[in-house]
Amino acid sequence: MRAAMANAEVDDDVLCYDPTALRLETEMARLTGKEAALFVPSGTMGNLISVLVHCEIRGSEVILGDNSHIHIYENGGISTIGGVHPRTVKNNKDGTMDIDLIEAAIRDPKFDICFPISRLICLENTHANCGGKCLPVEYIDRVGDLAKKHGLKLHIDGARIFNASVALGVPVHRLVQAADSVSVCLSKGLGAPVGSVIVGSKAFISRAKILRKTLGGGMRQVGVLCAAALVAVQDNIGKLKGDHKKAKSLAEGLNEIKGLNVDVSSVETNIVFFDILEGANITAPKLSENLKEHGILVLPESSSRIRLVVHYQISETDVQYTLSCIQKAVMGVPDENGVK
Amino acid sequence: MRAAMANAEVDDDVLCYDPTALRLETEMARLTGKEAALFVPSGTMGNLISVLVHCEIRGSEVILGDNSHIHIYENGGISTIGGVHPRTVKNNKDGTMDIDLIEAAIRDPKFDICFPISRLICLENTHANCGGKCLPVEYIDRVGDLAKKHGLKLHIDGARIFNASVALGVPVHRLVQAADSVSVCLSKGLGAPVGSVIVGSKAFISRAKILRKTLGGGMRQVGVLCAAALVAVQDNIGKLKGDHKKAKSLAEGLNEIKGLNVDVSSVETNIVFFDILEGANITAPKLSENLKEHGILVLPESSSRIRLVVHYQISETDVQYTLSCIQKAVMGVPDENGVK
Amino acid sequence: MRAAMANAEVDDDVLCYDPTALRLETEMARLTGKEAALFVPSGTMGNLISVLVHCEIRGSEVILGDNSHIHIYENGGISTIGGVHPRTVKNNKDGTMDIDLIEAAIRDPKFDICFPISRLICLENTHANCGGKCLPVEYIDRVGDLAKKHGLKLHIDGARIFNASVALGVPVHRLVQAADSVSVCLSKGLGAPVGSVIVGSKAFISRAKILRKTLGGGMRQVGVLCAAALVAVQDNIGKLKGDHKKAKSLAEGLNEIKGLNVDVSSVETNIVFFDILEGANITAPKLSENLKEHGILVLPESSSRIRLVVHYQISETDVQYTLSCIQKAVMGVPDENGVK
Amino acid sequence: MRAAMANAEVDDDVLCYDPTALRLETEMARLTGKEAALFVPSGTMGNLISVLVHCEIRGSEVILGDNSHIHIYENGGISTIGGVHPRTVKNNKDGTMDIDLIEAAIRDPKFDICFPISRLICLENTHANCGGKCLPVEYIDRVGDLAKKHGLKLHIDGARIFNASVALGVPVHRLVQAADSVSVCLSKGLGAPVGSVIVGSKAFISRAKILRKTLGGGMRQVGVLCAAALVAVQDNIGKLKGDHKKAKSLAEGLNEIKGLNVDVSSVETNIVFFDILEGANITAPKLSENLKEHGILVLPESSSRIRLVVHYQISETDVQYTLSCIQKAVMGVPDENGVK
Repeated sequence: MRAAMANAEVDDDVLCYDPTALRLETEMARLTGKEAALFVPSGTMGNLISVLVHCEIRGSEVILGDNSHIHIYENGGISTIGGVHPRTVKNNKDGTMDIDLIEAAIRDPKFDICFPISRLICLENTHANCGGKCLPVEYIDRVGDLAKKHGLKLHIDGARIFNASVALGVPVHRLVQAADSVSVCLSKGLGAPVGSVIVGSKAFISRAKILRKTLGGGMRQVGVLCAAALVAVQDNIGKLKGDHKKAKSLAEGLNEIKGLNVDVSSVETNIVFFDILEGANITAPKLSENLKEHGILVLPESSSRIRLVVHYQISETDVQYTLSCIQKAVMGVPDENGVK
Repeated sequence: MRAAMANAEVDDDVLCYDPTALRLETEMARLTGKEAALFVPSGTMGNLISVLVHCEIRGSEVILGDNSHIHIYENGGISTIGGVHPRTVKNNKDGTMDIDLIEAAIRDPKFDICFPISRLICLENTHANCGGKCLPVEYIDRVGDLAKKHGLKLHIDGARIFNASVALGVPVHRLVQAADSVSVCLSKGLGAPVGSVIVGSKAFISRAKILRKTLGGGMRQVGVLCAAALVAVQDNIGKLKGDHKKAKSLAEGLNEIKGLNVDVSSVETNIVFFDILEGANITAPKLSENLKEHGILVLPESSSRIRLVVHYQISETDVQYTLSCIQKAVMGVPDENGVK
Repeated sequence: MRAAMANAEVDDDVLCYDPTALRLETEMARLTGKEAALFVPSGTMGNLISVLVHCEIRGSEVILGDNSHIHIYENGGISTIGGVHPRTVKNNKDGTMDIDLIEAAIRDPKFDICFPISRLICLENTHANCGGKCLPVEYIDRVGDLAKKHGLKLHIDGARIFNASVALGVPVHRLVQAADSVSVCLSKGLGAPVGSVIVGSKAFISRAKILRKTLGGGMRQVGVLCAAALVAVQDNIGKLKGDHKKAKSLAEGLNEIKGLNVDVSSVETNIVFFDILEGANITAPKLSENLKEHGILVLPESSSRIRLVVHYQISETDVQYTLSCIQKAVMGVPDENGVK
Repeated sequence: MRAAMANAEVDDDVLCYDPTALRLETEMARLTGKEAALFVPSGTMGNLISVLVHCEIRGSEVILGDNSHIHIYENGGISTIGGVHPRTVKNNKDGTMDIDLIEAAIRDPKFDICFPISRLICLENTHANCGGKCLPVEYIDRVGDLAKKHGLKLHIDGARIFNASVALGVPVHRLVQAADSVSVCLSKGLGAPVGSVIVGSKAFISRAKILRKTLGGGMRQVGVLCAAALVAVQDNIGKLKGDHKKAKSLAEGLNEIKGLNVDVSSVETNIVFFDILEGANITAPKLSENLKEHGILVLPESSSRIRLVVHYQISETDVQYTLSCIQKAVMGVPDENGVK
């Protein structure tokens, strides 16, 4: 990948001239079955641009999950930067929102004197905060039908859409068929150093380019990044299946550690959440620190809940090492260096 | 009231010079126990200004009820005009939000790299969409304590705060003691033709004046409206108790009509919601139209739910007339004019 | 006027039902030759709504005079509330902007990757900061042609459009023929207590109603204000000619006072600017305070410049009294009360 | 540079952990004499973040040149995304704005009821649209003093600040001493593939990090870009002097071509503007296309004006080749391929 970066052919991509960026965009449009694509510096910008393009008229409202990444982890940027009003619907444990609740949240345009105008529904697939759960294609299609029926657009935060595709055995282009736009992360599961891509119709991407420039996401010789991303797309999608297997193996191992709890059946992709049970004499933040000293990075979600993410550079051996470190930490056994 | 308007002493209130406006503002500050007050053209502007003053820094988030007037009926203006990100918490049937859910919604400022900053909690008292339910003073105080603990402000949408005060038997100034700001409607229960007042600290009102001008709510010889409002405040608060009695009487009467359902015990102030049961051969919108022909204005909330509001110009006789009109409509009995 | 207010027929105008408001709006649409009209609480809101309706898509730019009321005195609300980017063009002394400078300020839509999109040109007639100067109909028509040629809209801040009409001898509907929207103040020259009206196409007013509600400018029984405004429109337009005569007489009188300077020929309507020459031993703020003690309200624009505005309740006698007070103050003659 | 990228040590820079980014930021802070620095994807984002951090309170106004890059070429993002109101001051030919005009544009905070609040002055050094002219340190210091006197901040768009430093013979840290923030481009004169850096106080950079994330400019393993930028900073600053010499040589050569006009004395850095005189039988866009066919990229600014920029990869031979291509094109001589 670094070699590809070192040899990348580049040009000014603020003006959308960079040849390597164009190759990456063409490839991503093909994979997702959309007309056009655009490289952006981050998934947050991909989602922000997508929401703002669909909601470009003042007074717009977006319907999204109350546990979605856009609502929780993106600084509220759609409102604080974009002036878009969010209407949240409860996310079920599997990352879906009930179709009838979505429909109930759509504003009646007859009452526009009091209501913002509903313009967009957002889904997230896989759903990070719901443990990397996959939204099945039938569900997405139904939400797409609902959106069409009411004249709304559908955006999918597909930061981990390739994980969903692999886990469900459904090609990405089919999985996002009902969507008007998708943002896809190149630097999470796929392992490129930087960047996301958004895909949609030509008109959508044409508006997105302007917003990318406005937000300051237009970069010059961005080909060096896109070259790496092309390698990631070509080489690493095939490795995701292995990531999921390792995550399952990790979950099963955790489940056998006394004092921990994992819903093994809920591990569908590369994310594993586990809970530290009440009796255990360690908190999640403490465990996280302990693991860091052993070179393992995890995310404490609360005082008793931890998130683990597996990627292609983590081997089955690393999984076993991680399990043994966690077991020792939870049992309070000091390691050879006396770290407890 | 019209006489008071006709004789009002006036001056330019864009510059906050109108003597009658000043008298009204002084009186409202006294009644609510706050340092200062400001006349605004509407409750929507009162809420909008209040939220924006408390959230004047880009990147702010407000916590409010998912069924609140600000979230549902004010065009999403806090986001679409003000760039403030809303975080909703489920409204219980009585208009409260669970204290622990509010606390869970407050963002950890340590993660400001991903999170907006929580700055404000909004309550609504009485809560219109929850049937005019009153928030008790103990509850408000607890929310106030929570806000203080986390460095947030508390705003009360007190469009109907005088109804709550009368129904609870607690003076308004005590009811809003924990609040940093309150918006109070003069044209709903109180019966003035136009306007609301917001109250708070001198610093809050000083910022509010600028925003009122920015939004275009600074009006010139506004004394003509404030004179009417002063009459409303002096004469009509005493009449609210009667409104509540009439609403109760209306609810009881509706409950006796076959095909309708009312939760009589939930009628605490001047709002009555009733449901048309499945067997009935009329929809809410149809019933609303029918009643309009008889000079009765009601609000259909859905295909089977209607909202009635009582005010001081509606007599016990009007209540009985309304009941009889509804009964005939629901039973399908044509009236003397053949209207069915 | 107060009698009209006391007897006004009213209804809820948030929902645009108030019959007196409807009468006023119909009359204003007729006078300005536009399809529809909307009552708003202030001229600032009238301009803000108009700019925001024409620029409802994120990324819009408005071209306006660098000395215009919207740019200087309305809190920058079009940006700070509406997110619209202003592009200013130099205002000439007569309130016009050079047509070729306006054209040069229109962005080439081919470069939308870097440029905001030009959507609107704003004129001001009469131009307050340029001494109440009238824009002639030929000039407005040319700007209108330019706007059409480039697909832009034209808004006129017509706070004092009736003064322009009277001074130019051109009916208002002709004067604003090229405009897509006009805001007209009812409480300046026309003498109503509160309010402005915006006029335009039905589609424009339909969008304006939503924004009025969003901003909090939707008021309930607003008929009490509209009744006064109807009287103002019927009775006071005829009096504007007299105001202009009195302003001229004021200017001529000021010009004869040693130490002052007025460009008499530039006084076209009811606004008079005068300068205090260097030798005089009084500053503008000091003179303003002195006059206030004599019951005369003036606006100091700088340390040496004062603005006077004449309206129908100011008589020729008041003009002479004002002149004599100013003369004494400038000459340093104490009055009978010893005020200097 | 590509080798440095290929070997860069990286980590997650959304959370500001990337070691190579930290090295670059430390180096840029040192060079500019500021406490802290932050890598951003583009100069547009650097300026946008800087303006928004200084103007984080709703109702802010920024004073900037009417010909500045921020005002003309950045999509009006400070308003359309940030809600900041711009107040422009005329840019002189040398890129300065008259100090007294800047001072006159600062709003009197006493009139905040009508005025936005002035919070920031922006300068641009070198000034691109003014031909790459350098602002001298004395001028910048005076503007800094003015800003301090009125409680405003000073931001410098220093996309080409190293060119100014080299041309003036003043170290960058001295040149920006009066500034509260500076944005510096790494991909223009310095030749890194992507990115800019903003510098300022620790508090400023701490707020900037949040906004970078909000806008979507937080990138993951950004070290690959920062490694290239570090090489650029170390190797290419020394080459700028040569660029300026080549630009001068280019300007002198152009001046000798009949039909063209260049103000040679105004060429201070690496930008050359030239005008095609009226008699010449070629337009600027046509000439631009012609040169493109010869592998030379130039920017037509109008029908008769062209901008040329020189960088370190352009040799003196390239300059001579460019001159000869331009001469042939202007004279209408077909080249060996028949291109005219």
